[in-house]
Amino acid sequence: MTKHIPNLQVALDHSDLKGAIKAAVAVGAEVDIIEAGTVCLLQVGSELVEVLRNLFPDKIIVADTKCADAGGTIAKNNAVRGADWMTCICSATIPTMSAALKAIQEVNGDKGEIQIELYGDWTYDQAQLWLDAGISQAIYHQSRDALLAGETWGEKDLNKVKKLIDMGFRVSVTGGLDVDTLKLFEGVDVYTFIAGRGITEAENPAQAAREFKDEIRRIWG
Amino acid sequence: MTKHIPNLQVALDHSDLKGAIKAAVAVGAEVDIIEAGTVCLLQVGSELVEVLRNLFPDKIIVADTKCADAGGTIAKNNAVRGADWMTCICSATIPTMSAALKAIQEVNGDKGEIQIELYGDWTYDQAQLWLDAGISQAIYHQSRDALLAGETWGEKDLNKVKKLIDMGFRVSVTGGLDVDTLKLFEGVDVYTFIAGRGITEAENPAQAAREFKDEIRRIWG
Repeated sequence: MTKHIPNLQVALDHSDLKGAIKAAVAVGAEVDIIEAGTVCLLQVGSELVEVLRNLFPDKIIVADTKCADAGGTIAKNNAVRGADWMTCICSATIPTMSAALKAIQEVNGDKGEIQIELYGDWTYDQAQLWLDAGISQAIYHQSRDALLAGETWGEKDLNKVKKLIDMGFRVSVTGGLDVDTLKLFEGVDVYTFIAGRGITEAENPAQAAREFKDEIRRIWG
Repeated sequence: MTKHIPNLQVALDHSDLKGAIKAAVAVGAEVDIIEAGTVCLLQVGSELVEVLRNLFPDKIIVADTKCADAGGTIAKNNAVRGADWMTCICSATIPTMSAALKAIQEVNGDKGEIQIELYGDWTYDQAQLWLDAGISQAIYHQSRDALLAGETWGEKDLNKVKKLIDMGFRVSVTGGLDVDTLKLFEGVDVYTFIAGRGITEAENPAQAAREFKDEIRRIWG
């Protein structure tokens, strides 16, 4: 197995299209994956995906829909506007996830992927069903609201991430990440680090993205 | 306790604003609650909520965001555009749900409510935490994709609905409902029946809504 250097993904979680686009233009070239965030999708719709696709034809674009139902419709709606990947919430049913996967691959071929967003209580038995359904990306989250309530990354989180990786998932991690917290994950084969405000609200967002990339290369390179 | 006659809610799950508005205009006056559906919100954003609010100043408008995170931001974004209620997915954390409730009540006062969308595996222990957090509406779902895969309403579903009602929830039910399936719920104190295509795709949507209301009154009136 060749060593994987974790991707860097920027989440655009603005409540307005202009803010999201401004941030995307500032940092898009520095990152591997650009995420149309849930807050922004719910505010402005999938036009955001289309704008990002046009601005960054060669980047991976993720629509963070956290889809819970109507997987086929929502995946198609986003795929035709340029999303390579889309997220489903872990409490969605397997038929929803499968319908989403089928729809996104109808537009994107094998490059189309569904990522499962892990929130609340889920089990490894459920996770195995996602793998069985052909879904091998998961996103391990520290909820923004949980972080605001004082929770943070700990050994328990890292062990869950490791177990998912051992099961065969490519795991993204997100929630309250900054350059200094990356080293908490040293030795863990993280697939992608997702940062939002840690990059987009920095004084110099492009430089903040480069600092993330430098630290990722220092640890995993 | 005065007897409650279940509400009728229409879900606008169109992929385009025009289709959603056309359906809203056709049936809005006939129903109690108008839902800005997830599919449409993700396609066109919260402008949908604003249009519905302007069209129907006296109806309850629900933003079916199925919010999983950033509850405060998403609730505020929808409340300021006119949503009375908003949904959170059951796998959201309690801090997310609480932040959403606080934000929607900051705009709407006590009239602002959060509804928990029940998907996948949830527990009554979790449900008690929602009640403890001041959230007393839940939506029991048959997933559209699960219905397409051949599942339907059964005794197991009804017992879960009854148990939630016994706990103190006002429970909405949705998923594959038509006028003929309402009688399955006879004897159950359902708070709201939610129908989408069963109304909006009918040859005469307003008449379809009236038939739902007539059957509800026949059974619960």
